[in-house]
Amino acid sequence: MTPHPRLSLNQACIKYATLDEALAVTAEAGIGSIGLWREPVADVGLAKAAELVTRSGLRVSSLCRGGFVTAEGQSARTAALAENRRAIEETAALAAAGAEGSAAVLVLVAGGLPATDTDLRGARERAQDAIGALVDDAAAAGVTLAIEPMHPMYAADRGVISTLRQALDIAAPFPALTVGVVIDAFHVWWDPEVFDQIARAGVERRIASYQVNDWITPLPADSLLARGLMGDGHIDLRALTDAVGVAGYIGDVEVEIFSHDLWNMPYAHAAAMISRRFDAIGLPTTAHQSTSC
Amino acid sequence: MTPHPRLSLNQACIKYATLDEALAVTAEAGIGSIGLWREPVADVGLAKAAELVTRSGLRVSSLCRGGFVTAEGQSARTAALAENRRAIEETAALAAAGAEGSAAVLVLVAGGLPATDTDLRGARERAQDAIGALVDDAAAAGVTLAIEPMHPMYAADRGVISTLRQALDIAAPFPALTVGVVIDAFHVWWDPEVFDQIARAGVERRIASYQVNDWITPLPADSLLARGLMGDGHIDLRALTDAVGVAGYIGDVEVEIFSHDLWNMPYAHAAAMISRRFDAIGLPTTAHQSTSC
Repeated sequence: MTPHPRLSLNQACIKYATLDEALAVTAEAGIGSIGLWREPVADVGLAKAAELVTRSGLRVSSLCRGGFVTAEGQSARTAALAENRRAIEETAALAAAGAEGSAAVLVLVAGGLPATDTDLRGARERAQDAIGALVDDAAAAGVTLAIEPMHPMYAADRGVISTLRQALDIAAPFPALTVGVVIDAFHVWWDPEVFDQIARAGVERRIASYQVNDWITPLPADSLLARGLMGDGHIDLRALTDAVGVAGYIGDVEVEIFSHDLWNMPYAHAAAMISRRFDAIGLPTTAHQSTSC
Repeated sequence: MTPHPRLSLNQACIKYATLDEALAVTAEAGIGSIGLWREPVADVGLAKAAELVTRSGLRVSSLCRGGFVTAEGQSARTAALAENRRAIEETAALAAAGAEGSAAVLVLVAGGLPATDTDLRGARERAQDAIGALVDDAAAAGVTLAIEPMHPMYAADRGVISTLRQALDIAAPFPALTVGVVIDAFHVWWDPEVFDQIARAGVERRIASYQVNDWITPLPADSLLARGLMGDGHIDLRALTDAVGVAGYIGDVEVEIFSHDLWNMPYAHAAAMISRRFDAIGLPTTAHQSTSC
């Protein structure tokens, strides 16, 4: 079976693979696109990474992750902004190195509350402020900063932006080409407003990335590794995917799953399983095929 | 130190205590009010439970729990409604047995998705429908059905009502005396809209119960036992409590914590610790003292 042309394998699914291995596994599985992570890119250096990406023939659908901009104090802020500027440059370089239809999308995870801190509103303001501080750099590099609303169970220690509505509100003052949102099924599926906010995101042209996975129960003990494979959980991925399609998103669809089960498989096995499960979602026919294809 | 006159000890904090023990521990700690659970009441029978409550001299601030009305099929629905009608009767009887200022409040947890089901909207509709089916019984008994929005991490397997906005929307068609909401800090603290929705709940006179606890990190392995003691986590309880006070809530404030740490303490020790931590929150002076006092 040929993988769907819009499927992108997020590298987190095969976390222990080097960049070179991840590119090879993805290409050999017939998957046309990959979502990259900064750490394996850094392991080989940006120039070499770009060369490997080009050689792979794959599209790049996003780079994970920028953000983590909620620490207090000027020096922490300066350091975080500098790190994000490096991530913006990497995003631009890797997208340029990818095949036609690559997306220069930097996924932003806001960051959590400082230890023992209870000022959630303050942390949210710092996140918004940091995005404002990065917009010009992103625009100059042709990169879209993609704000990822995270599941509320991560609000304290990982991502203080908790809903799609909130992410869109934060993005609103900025050009849609430069500040968008990530719609990650795991993070947003529970939201009573999710379909309304997906529609809004479409109207506002903010959907920079769409990621699929599943919510399994019981919730695994390590909440960071709580994601399931599409079809194993409670998310109506067909409805969500239809909504994202109707909202006009025609880019690659990333599978992003953090899971010991996947990580412990041979990479090729994981890629094949993801490809099979992805097919079962059924991408909407209402949208055009990706410009990436 | 005398416990705050509006403090209520939810029985879940001393889960292994019988009703008789829980009432004694609460009274001996100088706490004037208790939040009861149906199971220990059932262990002695309703008539005996009411007698014990009266003898304790305590107020009853709520009964946990009704709800669990999301199962599919007519027979499951009929059984769930019958169970809730029994819970309504118990709520009325126990509040009547409690000291002056007791609240006939039945906490409703909607229930989760049926196994392998992905129809979250359908489950939410069943929850709303069930509340409609119970309103007349509750009104006749003088009981307030208090819809508890639960943290989104429980949306799949415990409670499909996930935000205060959603709970208020569901309550909206019904009289405020009969259908209200529970504001439980652990469940709602992360919500970017929480302060707006608390204010709305005040205007709409829907705040039937306010519960405090804390959100600790890292999230404990068992997400059902993830609650911390006030002051141990990331919730700005003072801000939340001020907002609830400004919104006009003058009833008892329950401490509700599911935690092995508390359960493994001698009951009196747990009650004393809760009382000390409660005092540190600082209840708002903008509201009158409880009518319960």
